[in-house]
Amino acid sequence: MVASKSSLLAVLAASFVAKGYAQTFQRLGACPELGCIFPPDQADFLAGQYFDIRLEVHAPVNGSEANGLEPDENFIFTIAKADSDTEAQTAAAYFGLEEPELESWSFGWYEDLFARDAKNKSIVNVASKIYRKVALYEPGEYTAILTYNNGTTSEATWLVRDIQEVRKAKNVILFIGDGMTTNMITAARLIAHKQKNGKYQTRMAMDQFPVLGHQMTHSLDTFITDSANSATALYTGHKSVVNALGVYGDSSADPFDDPKIETIAEIFHRICGGHVGIVSTAFIADATPAALTAHTRARSEYGAVIDSFLNGITNYSWTEWNGPDVLFGGGAENIFNSSLGGETYMDKDYYAEFANKGYQVVQDATELAAASNDSKTLGIFSVSNMAKWLDRNVYTDNLEGQENSPDGSGNDATNQPGLKEMTLKAIDILEERSGDGGWFIMSEAASIDKMMHVLDYDRALGELLELDDTIKASIAHLKANGAFNDTLILVTADHGHGFDVMGSVDTMYLNAQTTDRKKRDAIGTYQNSGESQYILTGNLTYTEGTNFPSNWDPRYTLFSGVSANPDHRENYQVHKGGPRKPATNITEDEDDYMVNPKDAPSGFVINGTLPVSADQGVHSLTDVPVFAMGPCQEIFGGVYSSIDVFFGMAECLGLSRLSPPGK
Amino acid sequence: MVASKSSLLAVLAASFVAKGYAQTFQRLGACPELGCIFPPDQADFLAGQYFDIRLEVHAPVNGSEANGLEPDENFIFTIAKADSDTEAQTAAAYFGLEEPELESWSFGWYEDLFARDAKNKSIVNVASKIYRKVALYEPGEYTAILTYNNGTTSEATWLVRDIQEVRKAKNVILFIGDGMTTNMITAARLIAHKQKNGKYQTRMAMDQFPVLGHQMTHSLDTFITDSANSATALYTGHKSVVNALGVYGDSSADPFDDPKIETIAEIFHRICGGHVGIVSTAFIADATPAALTAHTRARSEYGAVIDSFLNGITNYSWTEWNGPDVLFGGGAENIFNSSLGGETYMDKDYYAEFANKGYQVVQDATELAAASNDSKTLGIFSVSNMAKWLDRNVYTDNLEGQENSPDGSGNDATNQPGLKEMTLKAIDILEERSGDGGWFIMSEAASIDKMMHVLDYDRALGELLELDDTIKASIAHLKANGAFNDTLILVTADHGHGFDVMGSVDTMYLNAQTTDRKKRDAIGTYQNSGESQYILTGNLTYTEGTNFPSNWDPRYTLFSGVSANPDHRENYQVHKGGPRKPATNITEDEDDYMVNPKDAPSGFVINGTLPVSADQGVHSLTDVPVFAMGPCQEIFGGVYSSIDVFFGMAECLGLSRLSPPGK
Repeated sequence: MVASKSSLLAVLAASFVAKGYAQTFQRLGACPELGCIFPPDQADFLAGQYFDIRLEVHAPVNGSEANGLEPDENFIFTIAKADSDTEAQTAAAYFGLEEPELESWSFGWYEDLFARDAKNKSIVNVASKIYRKVALYEPGEYTAILTYNNGTTSEATWLVRDIQEVRKAKNVILFIGDGMTTNMITAARLIAHKQKNGKYQTRMAMDQFPVLGHQMTHSLDTFITDSANSATALYTGHKSVVNALGVYGDSSADPFDDPKIETIAEIFHRICGGHVGIVSTAFIADATPAALTAHTRARSEYGAVIDSFLNGITNYSWTEWNGPDVLFGGGAENIFNSSLGGETYMDKDYYAEFANKGYQVVQDATELAAASNDSKTLGIFSVSNMAKWLDRNVYTDNLEGQENSPDGSGNDATNQPGLKEMTLKAIDILEERSGDGGWFIMSEAASIDKMMHVLDYDRALGELLELDDTIKASIAHLKANGAFNDTLILVTADHGHGFDVMGSVDTMYLNAQTTDRKKRDAIGTYQNSGESQYILTGNLTYTEGTNFPSNWDPRYTLFSGVSANPDHRENYQVHKGGPRKPATNITEDEDDYMVNPKDAPSGFVINGTLPVSADQGVHSLTDVPVFAMGPCQEIFGGVYSSIDVFFGMAECLGLSRLSPPGK
Repeated sequence: MVASKSSLLAVLAASFVAKGYAQTFQRLGACPELGCIFPPDQADFLAGQYFDIRLEVHAPVNGSEANGLEPDENFIFTIAKADSDTEAQTAAAYFGLEEPELESWSFGWYEDLFARDAKNKSIVNVASKIYRKVALYEPGEYTAILTYNNGTTSEATWLVRDIQEVRKAKNVILFIGDGMTTNMITAARLIAHKQKNGKYQTRMAMDQFPVLGHQMTHSLDTFITDSANSATALYTGHKSVVNALGVYGDSSADPFDDPKIETIAEIFHRICGGHVGIVSTAFIADATPAALTAHTRARSEYGAVIDSFLNGITNYSWTEWNGPDVLFGGGAENIFNSSLGGETYMDKDYYAEFANKGYQVVQDATELAAASNDSKTLGIFSVSNMAKWLDRNVYTDNLEGQENSPDGSGNDATNQPGLKEMTLKAIDILEERSGDGGWFIMSEAASIDKMMHVLDYDRALGELLELDDTIKASIAHLKANGAFNDTLILVTADHGHGFDVMGSVDTMYLNAQTTDRKKRDAIGTYQNSGESQYILTGNLTYTEGTNFPSNWDPRYTLFSGVSANPDHRENYQVHKGGPRKPATNITEDEDDYMVNPKDAPSGFVINGTLPVSADQGVHSLTDVPVFAMGPCQEIFGGVYSSIDVFFGMAECLGLSRLSPPGK
């Protein structure tokens, strides 16, 4: 039997993984059998892409699968090219590696909600090995077989895609609207672009892309994804599990030992000498930026994520990584001073660590604009997530009293750049520095998602419009600096929220009514939805030629909502005091959220459908759009999997390698 | 002043139009000024397309716009080609028509909800003329000016699109999933197609279309559309108003005198001698089929709609129309016997009327299959809407006791065909009969919308899967009969519902809990959404090779919902007893709907957000997808307006005419 210390860690790890709202439980994602192979059955690979192989043999101690066996430590793992005459070889022989050491641990899980309520955990003992930093070069199918328990086999079919080593684009800019759906784009267009008699008089930048696709976000083991495993799919071509960045999730307690997959940033850097820019309005250790360089089962390991940006993976042999040319976002608490509410890796000061590696460091919009374009640049503009477009541009008083300066002084970060300023500067620096290697920029409008989570639709749509403005400005910038014809421009999302608009609300009428049922009469649908009132009055100007609402607080507002929410109150009016907090745990039970009485007090109560432990909304299933423009745009039409975004970008950049380096 | 009788009728008509849920009111859609031109500013035309021109001058008697004036009966209306040297001409001169008679009436409207509550109606007197059956042939912009009240002008810019007279496709089949969104397609895929480790093992037919677009459904005067004005946009290239079929809505009381626009079916018939098939699972007088031939402001004029299918427009001079080759659907109550709950035009028997014009008449699936392919065919298979796929194939007991036989016998229509059988037969008949003229088929999965309205998501997704199965079978059929290469295949929708899936529900756990708040704990999101359980067990087979759920009642169901709903209870389990009724007016007030205590009794209560007069869900704003395959498919990529679907089909069929007939 395994050591009790190991068990304890495993149980802790398992409960971290399962944190959230409970219903369907699995022993281990992508492993319904007792033998587990990662990468699992159905995995696709780019030729030459590095990955690790984790094998596990499970011996359930109790529960529905208990069989009285010890974990088989003598399991055998072989690989064979499916369509060749060569015989199956052991992995060590196949890859020319030494046989790795056997590992063992145990973990626990709940089989269903009744088991959870009864605290009746099923324990599993595990024997395991991991083969690190391998690659497959020859396109085609491979058969990987794990044999254990006296001849039982688990099998995986892997596919190395047949993509030629032809580069069609020098650069890629990948815009990610986190949580952005077609529904939200439609709503943003409605409030920011004038129409007359049903015809829009101006178009969104996204609407002008020549190619449209839909990508399916289903994750490895569950149909709803978070931003970590969806980013992993977009960047590596491998779907993973909730909370995992650049790895498949194994059952061990250690969040850093899981089997890795090389990301587009790493491959591009290794093969082309390409330069990378990472831009987000989130705290920069958040999942979507993190998944470009981090490899951990736990997205919450923020300190390690920051270290990975700079140093790559240091605990195991892995692909070379010399840091991005540009890293812009919020999240100072994970950079240099954990007293700001976060953590830093080994308590290091990463302002100093980056500076020591030659980065210039900027901390506000003025410094960003003044920064030289020929230097690697770290820009950290706030503690936590950056301010929202609506607060930076309309309700600017909300920037006061935040004590979120990225220098840790306790001052307010009132001079934050927007996504546009960060992205244009990233383009300038990458253009200046990348030479023939080209560049890859990921630019994320992170708070579309964050504001949808808290049902703050105005702020979410403001973020979406800022993304559209950023896209528009980036296209113009690329045309001006001559890089447009060499650059593939993609706009997509990582998952959805179940948001839509169903009509209008006469807020004057709603506010004047005294009962919840009568307030609902303020809502107009169909012929009484009318026309958008957000662009009719007021004189807000943000950028010449860009479309934002001229009035965020008209009498007739959008009747919008999401398809799942916590208990809350709704008055369909902009939250002028800052991002909203729809639910609160007014009892002492932190898993018992109810209507926040301070939020939207003139509105009516909407009881939630989510578990009462939820204080915010959740992600949804819907396919999300992909807009493509530039070299290889035709790859991105139609309906496909999220992983195809990776393979399309890799194909366009010519990252496939059909033989090992030097051969 | 106008006659009081006219006033009364107008007020009645206005209140019909405004029926629904109240909030934003307008004096008249597309006419913010006191002079109204229909077609209004921004209208686009196909060259040679027939239309009527309605002019109105408004004189508000009271309310915020009252100016003490009588309606100016001496208004002048002129037209000029914008880029030519010719001077503006009066419409009569321009089109070579006699000056039409002056009309006058009055109507009333509410300016807002406070006015409605106070029954404080604003009255408007109107002077009007209408020019009927005109057309513009020369591409380019036209300036139409209405001058009234001593020199006040209202102006409309019209655009005749520059489309060549080149035919690229012989046939078009237009599939409409009524109310179908990308979100619903994603959900249907999840429950009907197996995935393994995040990769779908089979694909939906729609997912395999090479070209994807999004169309914006914003209507003429409101941003939420119903199926009447959205069908008008898809079929005529002109956006209209709620409830209007093939006309702009004027302010007169008569629902049949509004200015018409020629539809794709009419143009195709007139110009190419093309043959038309109309197929729907709705009652066949419903808006989506009706808008192909009907021209009325009131979609509820079902009797007149049926007459228009057969005889076209008979009350005014209009384009020739000899009836469709195929008309398949439900709705016997509007065909021959109004005692079935509907109305028939002038109390006629349209079984006899169609038969007298040479149609064979079929009334069940057996007769449909046996019908000859060389005859025009009327197929009416039920009273009211046809049975849902789920009831026809799984919960077949629900077909009993409906007393909905299309022969009016009071028997049950237990042998109804599905959308697939109707559509394949339509193809057979059209192929047999159309010759060189080619054919146009509209095939509508109507009850995606109808089941979304009543929050019956299982039935809605069943209808969507039946649509996908119909598409798949139609493609195979066209390939088999040799017509595939000549046929443009489009799949789209007319509007959305704010539906999405957010996770799973452990229904066993939900049913076992005793409080509403604890029942919500059965809901699993993110990592606890798990994998779809609808395709894992059971052995339902419907059609070889087609994917439907094998089990509609698994323990773990979809956690799905819409973003606006009436009061209801939800247990996330299939409604085995037939389409659900979520809300009921348990008080005597017919506009006060509450939770239906008989619906989903094991669930928890979700209070509504819609006005309490709503007993069902409503349409939403979202752009809807367009899938295109075949000749001209490339026209349909990217993001565009709903009217561009019409112009794309018209371009592909070569329906543009750059000079008048015979010139």
